[in-house]
Amino acid sequence: MRAVDVIMKKRDGGSLTRDEIRFFVDGVTNGTLPDYQASALLMAVCVRGMSANETGWLTDAMVHSGICVDLADVPGIKVDKHSTGGVGDKTSLVLAPLVAACGVAVPMMSGRGLGHTGGTLDKLESIPGFRVNLSLAEMKAALARAGCAMVGQTSQIAPADKKLYALRDVTGTVESIPLITASIMSKKIAEGIGALVLDVKTGSGAFMKTEADSRRLAESLVSVGNAAGVRTEAVITTMESPLGRAVGNALEVVECIEVLKGEGPADLIEVTFELAARMLVLGRAAGNRDEGRQRARAAIASGAALERFRQIIAIQGGDSWVVDDPMRLPRAPERHQLTARCAGYVARLDAELVGREMARLARAAYAIVWVNPLKGNPEYQPLAGGMRAALPFCDRFLPGHNLESLEELATVLAGIERRHAA
Amino acid sequence: MRAVDVIMKKRDGGSLTRDEIRFFVDGVTNGTLPDYQASALLMAVCVRGMSANETGWLTDAMVHSGICVDLADVPGIKVDKHSTGGVGDKTSLVLAPLVAACGVAVPMMSGRGLGHTGGTLDKLESIPGFRVNLSLAEMKAALARAGCAMVGQTSQIAPADKKLYALRDVTGTVESIPLITASIMSKKIAEGIGALVLDVKTGSGAFMKTEADSRRLAESLVSVGNAAGVRTEAVITTMESPLGRAVGNALEVVECIEVLKGEGPADLIEVTFELAARMLVLGRAAGNRDEGRQRARAAIASGAALERFRQIIAIQGGDSWVVDDPMRLPRAPERHQLTARCAGYVARLDAELVGREMARLARAAYAIVWVNPLKGNPEYQPLAGGMRAALPFCDRFLPGHNLESLEELATVLAGIERRHAA
Repeated sequence: MRAVDVIMKKRDGGSLTRDEIRFFVDGVTNGTLPDYQASALLMAVCVRGMSANETGWLTDAMVHSGICVDLADVPGIKVDKHSTGGVGDKTSLVLAPLVAACGVAVPMMSGRGLGHTGGTLDKLESIPGFRVNLSLAEMKAALARAGCAMVGQTSQIAPADKKLYALRDVTGTVESIPLITASIMSKKIAEGIGALVLDVKTGSGAFMKTEADSRRLAESLVSVGNAAGVRTEAVITTMESPLGRAVGNALEVVECIEVLKGEGPADLIEVTFELAARMLVLGRAAGNRDEGRQRARAAIASGAALERFRQIIAIQGGDSWVVDDPMRLPRAPERHQLTARCAGYVARLDAELVGREMARLARAAYAIVWVNPLKGNPEYQPLAGGMRAALPFCDRFLPGHNLESLEELATVLAGIERRHAA
Repeated sequence: MRAVDVIMKKRDGGSLTRDEIRFFVDGVTNGTLPDYQASALLMAVCVRGMSANETGWLTDAMVHSGICVDLADVPGIKVDKHSTGGVGDKTSLVLAPLVAACGVAVPMMSGRGLGHTGGTLDKLESIPGFRVNLSLAEMKAALARAGCAMVGQTSQIAPADKKLYALRDVTGTVESIPLITASIMSKKIAEGIGALVLDVKTGSGAFMKTEADSRRLAESLVSVGNAAGVRTEAVITTMESPLGRAVGNALEVVECIEVLKGEGPADLIEVTFELAARMLVLGRAAGNRDEGRQRARAAIASGAALERFRQIIAIQGGDSWVVDDPMRLPRAPERHQLTARCAGYVARLDAELVGREMARLARAAYAIVWVNPLKGNPEYQPLAGGMRAALPFCDRFLPGHNLESLEELATVLAGIERRHAA
């Protein structure tokens, strides 16, 4: 088989065979296919698309580029959750202990922040001492003791995805439903889980900007998951504004603790409970979603979910006292207030802009507090984290005149960056 | 400017700016743009196309990736000819001395064989001693003495094309009208010529299989040439069967000598005279094409064209006696006759199949004679060349039952290859 023939077939809109797709993925994995041929094929797939069969074969080939985790000795149906990525999207940190507290094992394997979106691993690492790189044995031990584990993918899981993603990132081939599907699902299928709930984000702050695209992605993900024997459901949720009121690793941990204490912002609670209910139904801990919601509410009311969070932090080497004393989390070296020029309500807060500016600051290792004195939320102010893993707090209280305020925000951020880069 | 943004713009069907295109070409030329990004963009161009403006800018950027030859001190309008590539397409070898004999300077820069098509340089090099790698000073001296020169492009001309073509060849991005246009025209524009006649081949043996595609390519080439100040015309000619009766480097040289002597096959003569007439009009040596044809015919009848060929061979270090004694050309080590099973006429001879088999034999350094004893053309038999530069003769005399005979041909060719590979 010649790579150039496979590339030309896809270039002309043809359907690739299972063998051709495996040839491509194997070549990427073992380095026999040069990057320039891989990227040409990725671009052809991006523009021409892939059928459901091709997407399934691609996913399967990527699964088999590495190991498949065997969790058969962990009793029950193992359920994971995956989000396609948003700003302030911290539900994973709540879901793992919450669903575990309801009796379903959650072997959660997460990723890093990507583009303007945050990453569960980065957030967890803002907890002093927290280790996300557990061995498989450690992960199984954590599952046995706490019913959940929150770890990163090892390099042995779907190594083809790592190589392909690095290439897609620099060749403008990230935005492709079949490629996104195979990237997400290959890693999830290789995890050894029995069921999966997907949170497909839609809107200006998501990778999928329209509901139609999000629905197509959701359908593709669910179809590939079920075909591979992982019972898969998807929820499409909005990502126009950041989820909750905190954006930034340490600040998001604090907000998660609030939710586990029965507090926290309504939008975050709503999304978290919807996902928890589905995970509980798929894990056979609830007969239907209503029952699942009730069980989740009870686990929070009883303190069981919060206790589980404390437990898993301790098991994974973290400082579990952060649950009681958020001041133990890292803090930002600089804090700024953006004063609204007039009283009013926030009509809209652009998630992508906020996410992008925060990611920029995180790279520069600095953070910002962004508080509106007109409404005031001073309880957050001392919690604004610094250090690599810390990102700022933001709340929905820009005045109605959005553009002016967003420009002001950008100006302040640029000033901080300049000062600290010097 | 970020390469990935340029790639994504084209991926989504956008039009690139002049600066973006120059950024891409400069990056390829100086090696700052990685191959995987270049190939992703090439694939995006392949699938999404380019506007006339973009194609012109791409050509211009490729021209300026290297030097532009200055032929200002050679008097008159310098005219070149370029063919998009065919099988048995040997017109260049006739045209250079013929047009020069009519008073128009022909600084001909040609290429090597590509895929199943032959290359002018390979054919010329079958003449013992012939040097195609002249310096610019040597080329100007040849132009001054003989009115023509037949050379290869130096590496200083459009170096971006060399890199891009190598990448296109292995990434399935050869077949793209804007990319083909920029590749051909950048080299021709950099040659320092004033006018150009293009022979755009169409049919099963050409790169463009349909007349519609050939017309689109011709229009693109002519438009880019004229916009760059090179008066450009194109002729679309058929390439279903090989042009003339000889395919193979040494054999084609012999056929060219025949044409220069006023003999040779009708189809080759027709194409050659049409191109010569246009070159003479563009070079202001004829008022119209009819007059051009008359001048060309006269130059052949008087022996002036043949004399010019002899002269340029000698100037470029070749054995000019081959004009009088074709036995001095290399010969094939093996010769085979394919006997037709019944008398008849050849309905069709697939140019691509013949070209591909011949290129395969040339790579293996072996050649074949392919003569039909029913019609007999024994005068060619002793001329069949061997060595690297020699390829076989073929004539249009397969019996009507084509498929059977072509299979027979393939079987014989495979047998030769096996024997000599052992």
